[in-house]
Amino acid sequence: MRKLGVWFIGARGSVATTATVGAAAVKSGTSPPQGCVTESPDFPVGLVPIADLVFGGHDITECPLRKRAEQLSRAGVVPAGLPGLLAQELDAADAEIRRGHVPGDGTQEAAAARLAGDIAGFRDRHRLARVVVVNVSSTEPPAAPRPEFQHLAALEERLAAGDDVLPTSSLYAYAAFRAGCGYVEFTPSTGPALPALAELAELRALPYAGRDGKTGETLVKSALAPMFAQRSLRVRSWSGLNLLGGGDGATLADPAARSSKTLSKERAVAGILGTPVEGETHIDYVEDLGEWKTAWDHVTFEGFLGVRMSLQFTWQGCDSALAAPLVLDLARLVARAHECGRYGVLADLAFFFKDPLGTDEHALAAQYARLHAFAADLAGDAS
Amino acid sequence: MRKLGVWFIGARGSVATTATVGAAAVKSGTSPPQGCVTESPDFPVGLVPIADLVFGGHDITECPLRKRAEQLSRAGVVPAGLPGLLAQELDAADAEIRRGHVPGDGTQEAAAARLAGDIAGFRDRHRLARVVVVNVSSTEPPAAPRPEFQHLAALEERLAAGDDVLPTSSLYAYAAFRAGCGYVEFTPSTGPALPALAELAELRALPYAGRDGKTGETLVKSALAPMFAQRSLRVRSWSGLNLLGGGDGATLADPAARSSKTLSKERAVAGILGTPVEGETHIDYVEDLGEWKTAWDHVTFEGFLGVRMSLQFTWQGCDSALAAPLVLDLARLVARAHECGRYGVLADLAFFFKDPLGTDEHALAAQYARLHAFAADLAGDAS
Amino acid sequence: MRKLGVWFIGARGSVATTATVGAAAVKSGTSPPQGCVTESPDFPVGLVPIADLVFGGHDITECPLRKRAEQLSRAGVVPAGLPGLLAQELDAADAEIRRGHVPGDGTQEAAAARLAGDIAGFRDRHRLARVVVVNVSSTEPPAAPRPEFQHLAALEERLAAGDDVLPTSSLYAYAAFRAGCGYVEFTPSTGPALPALAELAELRALPYAGRDGKTGETLVKSALAPMFAQRSLRVRSWSGLNLLGGGDGATLADPAARSSKTLSKERAVAGILGTPVEGETHIDYVEDLGEWKTAWDHVTFEGFLGVRMSLQFTWQGCDSALAAPLVLDLARLVARAHECGRYGVLADLAFFFKDPLGTDEHALAAQYARLHAFAADLAGDAS
Amino acid sequence: MRKLGVWFIGARGSVATTATVGAAAVKSGTSPPQGCVTESPDFPVGLVPIADLVFGGHDITECPLRKRAEQLSRAGVVPAGLPGLLAQELDAADAEIRRGHVPGDGTQEAAAARLAGDIAGFRDRHRLARVVVVNVSSTEPPAAPRPEFQHLAALEERLAAGDDVLPTSSLYAYAAFRAGCGYVEFTPSTGPALPALAELAELRALPYAGRDGKTGETLVKSALAPMFAQRSLRVRSWSGLNLLGGGDGATLADPAARSSKTLSKERAVAGILGTPVEGETHIDYVEDLGEWKTAWDHVTFEGFLGVRMSLQFTWQGCDSALAAPLVLDLARLVARAHECGRYGVLADLAFFFKDPLGTDEHALAAQYARLHAFAADLAGDAS
Repeated sequence: MRKLGVWFIGARGSVATTATVGAAAVKSGTSPPQGCVTESPDFPVGLVPIADLVFGGHDITECPLRKRAEQLSRAGVVPAGLPGLLAQELDAADAEIRRGHVPGDGTQEAAAARLAGDIAGFRDRHRLARVVVVNVSSTEPPAAPRPEFQHLAALEERLAAGDDVLPTSSLYAYAAFRAGCGYVEFTPSTGPALPALAELAELRALPYAGRDGKTGETLVKSALAPMFAQRSLRVRSWSGLNLLGGGDGATLADPAARSSKTLSKERAVAGILGTPVEGETHIDYVEDLGEWKTAWDHVTFEGFLGVRMSLQFTWQGCDSALAAPLVLDLARLVARAHECGRYGVLADLAFFFKDPLGTDEHALAAQYARLHAFAADLAGDAS
Repeated sequence: MRKLGVWFIGARGSVATTATVGAAAVKSGTSPPQGCVTESPDFPVGLVPIADLVFGGHDITECPLRKRAEQLSRAGVVPAGLPGLLAQELDAADAEIRRGHVPGDGTQEAAAARLAGDIAGFRDRHRLARVVVVNVSSTEPPAAPRPEFQHLAALEERLAAGDDVLPTSSLYAYAAFRAGCGYVEFTPSTGPALPALAELAELRALPYAGRDGKTGETLVKSALAPMFAQRSLRVRSWSGLNLLGGGDGATLADPAARSSKTLSKERAVAGILGTPVEGETHIDYVEDLGEWKTAWDHVTFEGFLGVRMSLQFTWQGCDSALAAPLVLDLARLVARAHECGRYGVLADLAFFFKDPLGTDEHALAAQYARLHAFAADLAGDAS
Repeated sequence: MRKLGVWFIGARGSVATTATVGAAAVKSGTSPPQGCVTESPDFPVGLVPIADLVFGGHDITECPLRKRAEQLSRAGVVPAGLPGLLAQELDAADAEIRRGHVPGDGTQEAAAARLAGDIAGFRDRHRLARVVVVNVSSTEPPAAPRPEFQHLAALEERLAAGDDVLPTSSLYAYAAFRAGCGYVEFTPSTGPALPALAELAELRALPYAGRDGKTGETLVKSALAPMFAQRSLRVRSWSGLNLLGGGDGATLADPAARSSKTLSKERAVAGILGTPVEGETHIDYVEDLGEWKTAWDHVTFEGFLGVRMSLQFTWQGCDSALAAPLVLDLARLVARAHECGRYGVLADLAFFFKDPLGTDEHALAAQYARLHAFAADLAGDAS
Repeated sequence: MRKLGVWFIGARGSVATTATVGAAAVKSGTSPPQGCVTESPDFPVGLVPIADLVFGGHDITECPLRKRAEQLSRAGVVPAGLPGLLAQELDAADAEIRRGHVPGDGTQEAAAARLAGDIAGFRDRHRLARVVVVNVSSTEPPAAPRPEFQHLAALEERLAAGDDVLPTSSLYAYAAFRAGCGYVEFTPSTGPALPALAELAELRALPYAGRDGKTGETLVKSALAPMFAQRSLRVRSWSGLNLLGGGDGATLADPAARSSKTLSKERAVAGILGTPVEGETHIDYVEDLGEWKTAWDHVTFEGFLGVRMSLQFTWQGCDSALAAPLVLDLARLVARAHECGRYGVLADLAFFFKDPLGTDEHALAAQYARLHAFAADLAGDAS
């Protein structure tokens, strides 16, 4: 009855695969929902249970989910034995993966219709109350601005004329909205962050959230930077080096794609401190790290009488294991917002993002307070 | 007219000297009040200006403040040239330092009367509206419980009988209350944290706050631990090593005194996470570090599907430079609370302490919200 | 013909199990001999091939090797699938494990005879040219000195009288020598480091080496400390915290056993710098770390014009994976020394140990040069 | 009698100023020669005493040395009071600083004659046995190859024709050789590393050494990388981030100059391990760090059975304080080599350099052994 569809863009990627495996593991009682914000004992209730999620998605690779899960198991992300144990659920999700859009493969107009149709078909087949589309595919380079991004009518005119003007992530967001689905932009890509698409979401009364899941270095930054501000300690420099393996690391070896991520990462500290801070954030692809990432940050700050001090931290995390539960949280929160009639950008979900759409709030505790209030509010609504 | 007296227990120590130098530097316009929480642009107003603070105190050493300031200058805590520039202010504060209590030097009853008299004399000489007593002396070992700590009458009976039952820090708190002053316990020592003294504070309508200034490793812990809780990441171990030079480090080379501090440090994480966590916190005295301290913390945590990850940080700070501005904040906040008729333990000041009296709230952001609300409230009161 | 027996004290422990699995994996071509010093392309040849090692040993637990290997596989030390693949070799080694000595279980004199008999039986059954006994069991507390430790005759007189005077590790060394075997003390325990046992080794013309395998923090220390000395940079403090999981960590939770290890660890830096250095080395048992250990070291040093600088490092290693290949190296080197007629303490093997017996050389590069020369020398000997 | 001239290119820079102050401090007995390799008790004797060094040089800035020393004192590099105490020595050195060459300011041919004349004049005025020229000026971008760099005759023909073909550092090396002086290239610039200049050094029987003083991150790398090789641990990645303040940091904000330094830094690890290693070395200019630099390195490596482990270190050093004593060492060693009739590139001085000219040896201990033998050899020569 209340089953919820989660439709991944990048459905065979590490994050989507981990989320699919993990949801099945939680459903079967094999694993607790560790890392799911919404499953914490003191979090407001009212969301669709993880056990009632149904998975599908788009991807442009062919490797079956079960095989991907085994790869992730060898990499230490998924416990040994789990892919075999959950083979049925993985195969079921695999059967719901459709071929994604490859630029040049027909017009974007035609692609949007086809992609929206895929999603609607999934919803119908499983008689789902609603579907949330979540982009966890590779990071795109920043998109150059275009006049038709400003208004839906102008955009649709261009698309109807056979012009391929949208970044791929935005094409997916457009298709999601056309299919009547909420959308989550979990990458730093443009996705729904165009006025024309915001217009469409408003028109169709659809909620969306983004951008760029906050899973590691920026998470720690957003917990630490407020400390300096609250203590009147002046941050003088903040430098960082991120070492990433895995698929996203390889994408980020491309300087253009990397610049999306770096910009997103540097916003948090300046946003919290209210002033630009000296220092750069580097991202390196280190293939050897596999699914893992290591980040080192070095902060210099000044206290009483100008005394200079420093803080450094090293974060060693597994990207997919950090991202996957947040993706489940987001799908369920956006679905509940949809159900409660909320639409447009959900700034209250800033807690999950490096570059939150709809707000400038980057401080983690403030974001959490806002998320909690939002969830309590949704929990109170009649459904 | 509204001048405020700050009376330091340990008036010649590094923290008190830095606070005295710093207040004079701020008054003279030489330094900005960096590190003073209450001087941040968005902090509610209404406190006595730093320029209107007058300093005095007790100590058991003789070294003049000006000389201590020069030592701190050589150690990099106080800018070169400042002790000379501010010699007049330092000499004035020095002239208000009285001999502290040494156990065995007369009964505690007599000592309390003498210490309270010293404080009252200071208040009278400078025609101060009020004085706040701040303990920044060396850390004591934990005190063994005694029945007479439970009730003021029982305590005063023992003291009147010539029995020296109080820990030295509590003797100072007792003297402060007898002199009608608010009190801040900035060390991990017992100070006012005895029911008998709480009774006296209530009786005399005096405010007090404590305990153990949160200036370094624990500050970072209290900013980071909520991140794990909010993200449903299970902390599996939290270990730490603190390397301290300087006077407090030497005191802490004594295992009994160290145990006060270690207990205080370990409370924060368990308090925030709501469950005990494996791992120890070590404190080493490394004379070579001088006024500086370095702390390394190592945290292991578990995310989705039981994946193990870790975070480590290294904090390199100057203890006195971190503590001194907080001491000025606290004196001014306690004075304002006193002025507004607040009394008893001020749990709203938990933001400043490792082991906050009157509350179990250890999470930094929550403490800051509470402090801010308290200050806004005080700012709104007619004075 | 030239098969070599390796007899482990602690044959079911993590190090012995990993060594046994690893040797089988190298023999089968499944894994390269990564981590074996003697298998490096530029290392002198002439040692018994890893494929010609035969394993047995003493232990006081019953858990079969195959099961232990599976546990290590789940802990990430042994690749998944390997225990099954090498089941035959593991079962063969398991069949050669005899019950170890438990204090109180008969006199040490009787135990020595029994233990030596076990080793000799193993040699005979497999027609081994020689056997090297390697202690990789749990760390003992330091042993109190006794007069009978000074001379073999006095020691044997006490043992004959039924007095149990030897630390357990020394009892095993005694049994090994009685069985005509070389001995490696890979733990910080006393083992052969008693004049009475040195006398026995000389008498029987047996080589031995020790003490306390240098696998992590101390390895790094011994690589870095010479840098400071060679650059005339004065080290002012060296502090460290070791976080250990696993079996050895649990043993070291006992302060007496820990003191053996801590002393051993602190010798290296002072030994290299030629002067004692301020600072302590802590060892914590953190069960959650499993087979892994993390060490943080913080060094302060002084350069030109007294300028203070610092270096810190974090080592994250898997103890068994670091120790196991060294154990194979040592067994093969001691066997070759035995074959070449060398006897007594082999100071040339200092490269492998935190607390090298027979020399004060702790600098890693100097130790390596000496090891290399020794191996070249052995390689040149007629066999 | 045996006085030695040290002629700095970049005589008003941080390194030269620190070296000049430091030599005067050592001469006056104010400071010990901490950080001077050649002053270590076990180093062979026979070099000109530090007290017998006379300083001069070229620079293109005007700020007097005494003022530069005071700046360095405020930055914590030079002890407070020292610049005043040593004012006479600083003024004497200042009087021997001549205007350096600015590209475009006359032909290089004319400049070489003038620069060589300045150096010769200095030697004559002070009746110095010899002068060593040391380049401690800003890092240049890598020089594009030119055919005339291959042969002295071709080079001099181009210069005589008024063509400015030399990188500035090489112009100074050329001038130094024309003046009959040994030369040290302490920066990553080209300097004497051109076949044409090597020819000139041979012809004039002059010794020289270089390149790029090994003072921080690379020093630690060259101490640690051999450890992995000797232990047969396979290094899988080595990444680093260098945060530099100060003058050299600003120069390195220019990507072209930075590439000289980065290339130089990456050679050491691959050189020692004998194979290229994944990972990059970043250099960031962080103005706030002043004279200090912080480097973080992260190493992943593989041990027995393919187990992955990691090491990370953070180095916090003062560049000038590390470089200055080495510059004194080098000048004295090159002078002594000159005196003993050694000429051409001194590969035995590789210990001091990131990118040693004349050898591929990067391992620190091996370099030290070679340096020590060389010094012993020079000490044994009749002078």
